[in-house]
This record gives sequence, C-alpha cells and structure tokens, in this order.
Amino acid sequence: MRPLSGIRVVEISSFVAVPLAGMTLAQLGAEVVRIDPVGGAADYHRWPLTADGESIYWAGLNKGKRSMEVDMRSTDGRELVQRLIAAAGVLITNVAGRQWHSYETLRALRSDLIHLEVVGRADGTTGVDYTVNAATGFPLVTGPADHTGPVNHVMPSWDVSCGLYAALAILAALRRRDATGQGSRIRLPLDDVALATAANLGFLTEPMVNGVQRPRLGNAIYGQYGRDFTSSDGQSFMVVALTARHFRDLAELTGTAQAVAALADSLGVDFADEGSRYAHRELLNDLFAEWFGSHTAEEVSAALSASSVLWDRYQSFAEVARSPRVTANPLFAPLHQDRIGTYPAPGLPMSVDGAHTHCDPAPALGADNAALPAEWLGHD
Amino acid sequence: MRPLSGIRVVEISSFVAVPLAGMTLAQLGAEVVRIDPVGGAADYHRWPLTADGESIYWAGLNKGKRSMEVDMRSTDGRELVQRLIAAAGVLITNVAGRQWHSYETLRALRSDLIHLEVVGRADGTTGVDYTVNAATGFPLVTGPADHTGPVNHVMPSWDVSCGLYAALAILAALRRRDATGQGSRIRLPLDDVALATAANLGFLTEPMVNGVQRPRLGNAIYGQYGRDFTSSDGQSFMVVALTARHFRDLAELTGTAQAVAALADSLGVDFADEGSRYAHRELLNDLFAEWFGSHTAEEVSAALSASSVLWDRYQSFAEVARSPRVTANPLFAPLHQDRIGTYPAPGLPMSVDGAHTHCDPAPALGADNAALPAEWLGHD
Repeated sequence: MRPLSGIRVVEISSFVAVPLAGMTLAQLGAEVVRIDPVGGAADYHRWPLTADGESIYWAGLNKGKRSMEVDMRSTDGRELVQRLIAAAGVLITNVAGRQWHSYETLRALRSDLIHLEVVGRADGTTGVDYTVNAATGFPLVTGPADHTGPVNHVMPSWDVSCGLYAALAILAALRRRDATGQGSRIRLPLDDVALATAANLGFLTEPMVNGVQRPRLGNAIYGQYGRDFTSSDGQSFMVVALTARHFRDLAELTGTAQAVAALADSLGVDFADEGSRYAHRELLNDLFAEWFGSHTAEEVSAALSASSVLWDRYQSFAEVARSPRVTANPLFAPLHQDRIGTYPAPGLPMSVDGAHTHCDPAPALGADNAALPAEWLGHD
Repeated sequence: MRPLSGIRVVEISSFVAVPLAGMTLAQLGAEVVRIDPVGGAADYHRWPLTADGESIYWAGLNKGKRSMEVDMRSTDGRELVQRLIAAAGVLITNVAGRQWHSYETLRALRSDLIHLEVVGRADGTTGVDYTVNAATGFPLVTGPADHTGPVNHVMPSWDVSCGLYAALAILAALRRRDATGQGSRIRLPLDDVALATAANLGFLTEPMVNGVQRPRLGNAIYGQYGRDFTSSDGQSFMVVALTARHFRDLAELTGTAQAVAALADSLGVDFADEGSRYAHRELLNDLFAEWFGSHTAEEVSAALSASSVLWDRYQSFAEVARSPRVTANPLFAPLHQDRIGTYPAPGLPMSVDGAHTHCDPAPALGADNAALPAEWLGHD
C-alpha cells in the first residue's frame, strides 16, 4: 500500500513548484489530476524541447498525473472544476487570486477542504525563482571571488524547496484532518521559502548577529577547508576536508604533511581547527594545487578514493546522464513517454523497504476529460 | 493541534539534511531529541560563528529540539539510545553503517520502527552537498558565459531538498503505519536527491533525448527571455518575461516597442513565441540595456512595478536581513537564543489558517540528559 492510496488531489498549476508538489503526491500514491486551460498552461511548451517541439520539461514534472483540459473562463468549466475539487477535498495551485477557486468559495462546497496556494511573495506581489533568488543575497556571493555583479543559480532551488514544502504541508494537513475533521487553508509564498531557508542556514542571521555577512569566496567553502583543484590533464575536482581526519588525509595523499606541519608551526595555528584551515586556505591551496597539477585525473581519483577525503569530479549533465549513477541505479527505471521517447526516469529519491516507487508517464493534455468526471462525480 | 502532536523522533545527525528534517518535524509538532556524542557532533562549531565562537549555523538548524549528549562509544550509552529509539518509534540519522543503530538491530526492539538513513550515494560511498553538486552538471553551466571551470552554488540545494524529502518520507511512513501497523526502512541518498531533481527538471533528460545539453548562459534563462540589467547608478536587476504579455510590457516600458517590432519583422520571427525571444536574446538585450543604463534604480523600479514584468533588485544578505520582507513579515518572530542573542527567526514558510508556527530556540547541548529518559522511559 502506498501512503496516499485513496487520496485525490486537484492541481491547477504551471511551472515548477506546484507541478513538483503534485507529482510528489502522485509518487506517494495519490490520484492527482492536473487541470489546464485549453491548449495547456503557460509552461506547456517550456524548454528543453524535443526536435518536434514537445516539452521535455513538462513531461518531467507531470509524471503519474491525470490530465484535464477545461475552459476555465466559462461558467460551466468553473463549476465542473469546483465540483471536482469538492469531490477530491484537496486543491493545490499557484494560480492565486481567483475568486472562483478561492478557499472561501470552495469551503462552502466542502467544509473540510485542504486548500494550498503558492504565491510569489507574502505581500501578494508576484515572484518567480529567478526574481526571488535575486533578492535573497545568494547571487552576490556566488561565482569567482574577483567577479563583480550577480551570478544566478541554474538549479531553481526555491521552486524545488517550495514544491517539497507544499507536498509536506499537504501530508501534514491530511494528518490533521484525519485527527480532527478540520480542513486547512495553506498559503506558501515562494519568497518565504527562500527567506526561511536563508535564515535557517545562517546566511541572514549572521549579519543580524555579527553585523557583517560572509564574503564571495569563489568555489571555497565558508569556514571550512574545501575548494576545486585541477589535474594535469585539465579535470576539475571538488575536494572537501570537513574534519581533522579528512584534512590529515588530504595532506598525506598530496605529500604535503611535512610542509603543512611547518606552515602550522610558522603561523602558530592548529589545522585540526576548521577555522584555521579556512583562515589560511590560500596558503594551503598553493601547497595542494601543485600536487593536483602534476597528477592525471586517474591518479588523482585513485589517491582520493583511497582516503577519507570527500571529493568528486566535476561532470557535465550529458556525462551524468550516461553514467552508471543513472543507468545502473534502481532510482531510475525506463519510462516510455509518448511524444518524447524511452529513457531512464527517476522515482522518489528514497527507497522504502529496499524498493523505489516509479510512476507512469506524463499524460496527454486532456486525456482524462471524459473519464475522470465520471469516476469522481459519478456521471458523464 | 499541530499535525505531529504526540509523535516522538530520535535524531542522530550532523550538518544540514537530517538536522533540517528533524527541525521541520519539530515545527510540525513532533517532539524531537537530537542525540550528540559528548562535546557535540562535527557540526557543533560550524561557521558562521559569533564573536564568542558560538555556531549561528547550529542554532539555526536545531531550533525546537531537545538535546542529549551521550557517550555512544560505551555500551551503556548505546543501550540508552536504543531504548529511546524503541520508545519513540522513529529514528532519523545520517550516521550510517553503525550496526548498533541499524534497522535490523533496532527492529528487534520495536517491530513497527520507522528508520530513515540519509547516505551520501546509493552505492554506499560518501558524499556531501559540495561533492554531490560537482557531479550533477550544474557547476559547469553556472556563472558568466565566458567563464571556464566550475562555479559552485553557495546555497546547499541538495542538503535542503534532502532534508525536506526526509521529513516528507517520515510523514508518509507515519501515515502508512497508522493504516497498516507496519514500520518502514527508508534510505535516502543525497546523490539520488540531486539526480532525481536534475532529471525531473529536464537537465539530465535533455541529453538523453536530444543528445545535447543546455549551454552555459550566464544570468540568462534557458529557453525564455530573462537576464540581469544594470541601472545608471549601478544597481543590478533581474528581469523576466515568461509570457507574451510580460514581454510586451517590457518593450513598452523601455520605449523599445517599435524597435522590437522592427527587429521581429527583419528577422521574420514572432516574439510572442518564447523560443524566438530566447534565440534572439542578445539583440533584445542590447535594445533594453540602453534604457536600464540611462535610468536610475528608482526610476527602473517604478517603471517595472507599474508593469506585469517579473523582476527584483539584487540584494545582499545584510540588506535582506534588515528589509521589511524580514522585519515586517509574520514568517519571522523574535527569538531569544541563549549564547547568541535575540533576532528574527523564521517558522515554517507556510501559514495554515492564517497563522505561522514558530518554535523554541535551539537547546543547550545535553540539556535534556536527565529529563528526557525519565519522561520517555519512565525512570531516571
């Protein structure tokens, strides 16, 4: 039995956060219908596309859902969607501010409704991952230390975290409803996901408490020893020493244990302390970089593998996609996706009792227009 | 009633993912005890630090928990922890591979145990956010388009997503246990969180299907129109036009509507199509950049605010920390944190029925050494 067996969810969404939330609930066993306007929502043609113009992105975030295409400008269309939401008892949406599917309107149809709305910012203004991220502080400390100007992330961290918080909020609300019979009105601003995360991790708290914030450090880790090194044949490696043992091993494998000890003596510091490793990272970098620069990627990999040091090679998406981490990983299973092809697709990242859950492909837009109302509302 | 009222959780953890999971469960109402080795785990002094050397980071990720400090190398210590886990019925940990708190060992003490272990990689090797990220593909497409070499993210996306997936997995397992009486053995590799996310978002699927991957684009958005612009007084703005309406508004407010139309004519394209906006972004950039460069930040903000265009100013952590988005946001409430000070701290990013949940400060290490065993095991 999957945890959300028997739970039905209506999703009115576009882009990343709410589609990810809906897909996650589907992966946990819920029956999720994504309801789109006729022709699909604004994300229906989002890149990357296949040569035929099909959205790989859309297929990726709507796996395991059912689909309806409804004219939500018409009274009939809105009434149908309202009845489906009342039947399901759970709505997730990022289409905010529509009176006809507001909590107040829908609660009159289903008193224990769970209604989750993702909005841009807490004050009701718009925001998407790109703009929210600009206003977090992260782009001004990302990128080469001598770079001026912002560096955006490519991975939409806020959208993904928002989608997972949304799924979590639905599970929590279901538990509360089971216990008390009460529904929930849940409001989740994307900006608040970013602010809460930046504060929980100390990025915002540091200037509040210390009056100053962390600097831009390139690929170095703040307050620890870690950075990228390049082998003689041009391969980049990320190398991290979080503990005194990691650091000792790094010095040993690079043949710099004596030089590092001499450096510690001359500076009067103890590199068993992470702050000392951080403070004197430039001197340490120079010692270690020489070893990396005079060994091939193969030699570097072999030496790091034999140590406790945390490390990996930088790899491209294309390289990752064909690596055994994907092709021989039970997280991935072959998916036949109409219009796109057959390729390995992931389930939820956790295994439960040794098994991964995999779900069906993304539906064709409107595939369940006829069947779903009949099933959920008992007529057609 | 908070959704996880009455649920008890033992956490044996360090760093980000599992501490965040435990804190999230505490914010949802669970009673969570973090059990540390004597003197604290490897993250107890993690940066940022106060002037007195107290970890702002540790305080941020352990809010609302109880704390025990136990000599887990001793038989007595291990037995105590085992009995606490059996009493709680839920363990979350990233200290993997210890026989004494393995699922097999503990299930003998509590048959419906929920046991969640975060590991580095699916194959059992180690990995942390920094090294996992290197091997995702993201650092090689992040940063200025003409930059060579990797650019690491500063926001630990994989740790945060992993922590949220872990919390989600616990809620799902609790629901399953309520329905069936069965426990769960949950294994969550940090690397699989990254791989599943990169695949769901299309970054890995694109090379699988099309044979090529997206390029490095600086701050431009892939497949859409969006990038950073700088005002005459040197303020950077992130500006995004996801829809045809956003794009029309951007052209109008920058006074380039005619020039954009003429450009479309001469190229024979329709900028209502997102792919066309993306393909010809360099030409569009030049048109728009002139307007931004000849207006002050105040003028730019006023014009963007009056339009549908998605935008924000790039801001530093220090600026965000003192902005009304934090100081006048009900997401944040004043927290008195012993050893650190009083500052605004966030609750969960979602409000439920209009209210945010705030939790207690982080505990002193070992604060519950005496009380908790008495409460949970009925003796002292």
